[in-house]
Amino acid sequence: MPDNSMPTPRTRVVREPHRGVYDRETVNAILDEGFLCHVGFVVEGQPYVIPTNYGRDGEVLYLHGSAASRMLRNLGAGIPACVTVTLLDGFVIARSVFNHSMNYRSVVILGTATLVDDPAEKLKALHTLSEHILPHRWDDARQPNEKELKATTVIRIPIDEFSAKVRTGPPKDDDEDLDFPTWAGVIPLEMKPGTPIPDVGCQTAVPGYLNNYTRKK
Amino acid sequence: MPDNSMPTPRTRVVREPHRGVYDRETVNAILDEGFLCHVGFVVEGQPYVIPTNYGRDGEVLYLHGSAASRMLRNLGAGIPACVTVTLLDGFVIARSVFNHSMNYRSVVILGTATLVDDPAEKLKALHTLSEHILPHRWDDARQPNEKELKATTVIRIPIDEFSAKVRTGPPKDDDEDLDFPTWAGVIPLEMKPGTPIPDVGCQTAVPGYLNNYTRKK
Repeated sequence: MPDNSMPTPRTRVVREPHRGVYDRETVNAILDEGFLCHVGFVVEGQPYVIPTNYGRDGEVLYLHGSAASRMLRNLGAGIPACVTVTLLDGFVIARSVFNHSMNYRSVVILGTATLVDDPAEKLKALHTLSEHILPHRWDDARQPNEKELKATTVIRIPIDEFSAKVRTGPPKDDDEDLDFPTWAGVIPLEMKPGTPIPDVGCQTAVPGYLNNYTRKK
Repeated sequence: MPDNSMPTPRTRVVREPHRGVYDRETVNAILDEGFLCHVGFVVEGQPYVIPTNYGRDGEVLYLHGSAASRMLRNLGAGIPACVTVTLLDGFVIARSVFNHSMNYRSVVILGTATLVDDPAEKLKALHTLSEHILPHRWDDARQPNEKELKATTVIRIPIDEFSAKVRTGPPKDDDEDLDFPTWAGVIPLEMKPGTPIPDVGCQTAVPGYLNNYTRKK
């Protein structure tokens, strides 16, 4: 087992090394606030990057989709993958164009996926995914039947080789720019849910877990 | 020149093909509303997916960063790349767990990057990036000097081989689920800017282009 508090040469943050974070607690907090990842894999020398949802259960990430998905078929065959999760926290507005930046928290996981074959683990993984993205929804919806489970592919990716990169705080301008006559600071960014739009024919009131949806823990 | 209104076998949307969109106008609109991309490239057989900003100028995407950036050094050497931009528009809450989905608009571009060497094109590309992410900022900030330009690497990726994938609208439940007693509909999602936080010592009022920041055109 690799020591997860240390990066590998492949996950060590080279550029802006002070932004590199390698402890599992920070990484898990980023993974748990996010729910969209970008998955990288290679087919015939060409990299592909595909957005998809995920769920975390301990030291495992689950992805799911249609059994017809090209991405899942490729990944399930056991090729190297990269899963990246990025949370944007703000625009960093510096006095100089050069020192403009973003506040963000990102995680990069390198690993090899395996198919989840066992029906019980598959159901558990789908529950994990559902609760990760929309807590409390599973128990409030019509649950998967056998046909739907067969039409769904689930893969697991171990969270073993990873790093996070985090930037927070105000701009860092050069001393000689501090008097430059322009506004400087941070414009916070947050993914915010709007007012729920009921489907045609829906007679039920919006449940609290959807009305007050937030990713912040 | 490929006919850009047609996908290549590598960019054709296989899963949910009705969500595939291939016209440049739709693709440009998605690229122009976004400003964060996830770039995929391969080193020693391992794919990497790295988040970064971008700017669009016509049929070219520009990426930039430190001259010390591993990603830009790799990409600038002319290896195959994939650039993916994803805009999340909402959670699609169906009556069945199986039919839950996301509303989203994503673009996948396959191509090979080249370094921007010419100083005049580099400056123009940085202007494009700045105006793409923060319109009106360039003229209001201290502009790059020669030392900063040397410390910055810019690459261009042609927007030639691409596809978009778009899901909009309400959930699509099975007929037999329509009576299931639960809420169904869409929770809209939008990346929203918060109240600007001025840097220590900043005496200038927040300019309008930052106070009313929006990605919607």
